[in-house]
Amino acid sequence: MSSVNDPIADMLTRIRNAGMARHETVRVPASNMKRELARILKREGYIADYEERGNGARRDLIIHLKYGPDGERVISGLRRLSRPGRRVYRKQADIPRVLDGLGIAILSTSRGVMTDHEARRAGIGGEVLCYVW
Amino acid sequence: MSSVNDPIADMLTRIRNAGMARHETVRVPASNMKRELARILKREGYIADYEERGNGARRDLIIHLKYGPDGERVISGLRRLSRPGRRVYRKQADIPRVLDGLGIAILSTSRGVMTDHEARRAGIGGEVLCYVW
Repeated sequence: MSSVNDPIADMLTRIRNAGMARHETVRVPASNMKRELARILKREGYIADYEERGNGARRDLIIHLKYGPDGERVISGLRRLSRPGRRVYRKQADIPRVLDGLGIAILSTSRGVMTDHEARRAGIGGEVLCYVW
Repeated sequence: MSSVNDPIADMLTRIRNAGMARHETVRVPASNMKRELARILKREGYIADYEERGNGARRDLIIHLKYGPDGERVISGLRRLSRPGRRVYRKQADIPRVLDGLGIAILSTSRGVMTDHEARRAGIGGEVLCYVW
């Protein structure tokens, strides 16, 4: 599946590449789902911030990456799970743990986009969008 | 649990620290279990090699770390699971997948130390020693 047809995979790839290059920010075309992912990445401490720029047909999400005191990346890895061509759904009992809790899974559920911890607490499953660690 | 009482955790910490410092080799006191871990790390491509030095009461395992063409670490992470104070056993159906197959779990089973893939294929569970990715 090319990133052209999978905007979430494209976002993760851009964040990964920008982090390896130690960029301050990375820009991706905005969407509701990507805004939700950014919201969770910020709240969970994986990115410093995000904002939206542009208007009408062309809105971008500007993601401000986060680095440790020695310049080390806060996000060491991102992995797309569910894809447009191969959706991955998990019921509550089968929500994956990422590196035994070192990372998070982000799920799209009937109650919105949330982490694996939140979904487990809420007792609901969903589509496993990606892992972040 | 301090690494004094958990020699496996100590080995993983030393490999992690040596990798971050981009060292060529790292030395750990030898043991049968650590030799088995090194064997799997080498076979799975995570380290370049390992050898044993010294004799009698003091034998060391010398682990030769592996880096990519741009000096990037081949092992990006190691995580101890089972510990002397809190053993983690999984039956075959519950053997964890590490980052959806990006990494490996190393298990101690009735048929020896092996990866999660091997244990699943063999249809046996065991003690989950660590994750490597």
